[in-house]
Amino acid sequence: MRRAVAGPEIERLIQLLARLPGLGPRSARRAALHLVKRREELMEPLAAAIADAHAKIVICSMCGNVDTRDPCTVCADVTRDPAILVVVENVVDLWALERATAVTGKYHVLGGTLSPLDGIGPDDLNLAALVSRVRDSTVKEVVLALNATVDGQTTAHYITDLLRDADVKVTRLAYGVPVGGELDYLDEGTLSAAIRSRTPF
Amino acid sequence: MRRAVAGPEIERLIQLLARLPGLGPRSARRAALHLVKRREELMEPLAAAIADAHAKIVICSMCGNVDTRDPCTVCADVTRDPAILVVVENVVDLWALERATAVTGKYHVLGGTLSPLDGIGPDDLNLAALVSRVRDSTVKEVVLALNATVDGQTTAHYITDLLRDADVKVTRLAYGVPVGGELDYLDEGTLSAAIRSRTPF
Repeated sequence: MRRAVAGPEIERLIQLLARLPGLGPRSARRAALHLVKRREELMEPLAAAIADAHAKIVICSMCGNVDTRDPCTVCADVTRDPAILVVVENVVDLWALERATAVTGKYHVLGGTLSPLDGIGPDDLNLAALVSRVRDSTVKEVVLALNATVDGQTTAHYITDLLRDADVKVTRLAYGVPVGGELDYLDEGTLSAAIRSRTPF
Repeated sequence: MRRAVAGPEIERLIQLLARLPGLGPRSARRAALHLVKRREELMEPLAAAIADAHAKIVICSMCGNVDTRDPCTVCADVTRDPAILVVVENVVDLWALERATAVTGKYHVLGGTLSPLDGIGPDDLNLAALVSRVRDSTVKEVVLALNATVDGQTTAHYITDLLRDADVKVTRLAYGVPVGGELDYLDEGTLSAAIRSRTPF
């Protein structure tokens, strides 16, 4: 964009919006104009919401979750089973599992996966804290809820090795046909896993 | 998301981000976490940039452009040819044409297109101002730079009718093969227009 058209305030807004995941330069421009058109009902509240979240949000020192309190609401929840620790890659995965309301235990957020190509090694992940949590606490089962990707599975194997000496059961999510999925659209790996792990009907 | 997992500040941030074009609920959650992870270098500047833009941005009373001054930088630019008025649907289109640095004249932003199905009629667009600008000023040519969509072309025809009595030449953008485009990937309408408007080589 030529500098003459839009003021520096708009250009700066567009540049910052373009750094959000899911927004490129074009959609950032559209988003900026969308904000300008909805000054009162969206632009002002969004600025306040970001500033508010910035002021209040902390990373949970126990599990790595994002919350406005430390320890986070999940870690502080005494109704959750402390014997089950669900290991996830990122906070989005924690949120996804919470939406499914399937987890009765607590979480541990790694903050990513091992990825030698991206230069992400064990020291870049929240792994030391995981080991000490498993050793010191009443954890009986570690559920590896990592993505079914190469990096996710590499990380799962690494964690399994790491916890070999600890007195815990290490499990992983089941592989199979996604609920609502049509077989014709699934890849061979998923179908093969679904056959291998077939269960009585 | 269960209310217990993330605080109300995060949920509000996600809800507002999800209202930006190009972001749905899932990508809004990812964007919110992206912000939280980059508090100092992105979250704080973005809140400030939105508030700053909110405080300073105005809509140009002459052309409908978005700027921090009224009349906007384009309208105030005396080096631009006042005889050429380029009519665009939205400010994004104005920005796109300015990036191409192809327009020597000034602009008029309609703020949309006629769209009976969406209940958008002539009174919802910046049309009265267009007519008075064309009548009162030194405009010699109105270039209809509207999208090559049904609504865009309907609006182009409507404006042509509206300006029938005015002493101006009304033109439109050329249709044809996009530069860099491969014929095999183009639709029949474009190819047919490109053949009809062929030029000497």
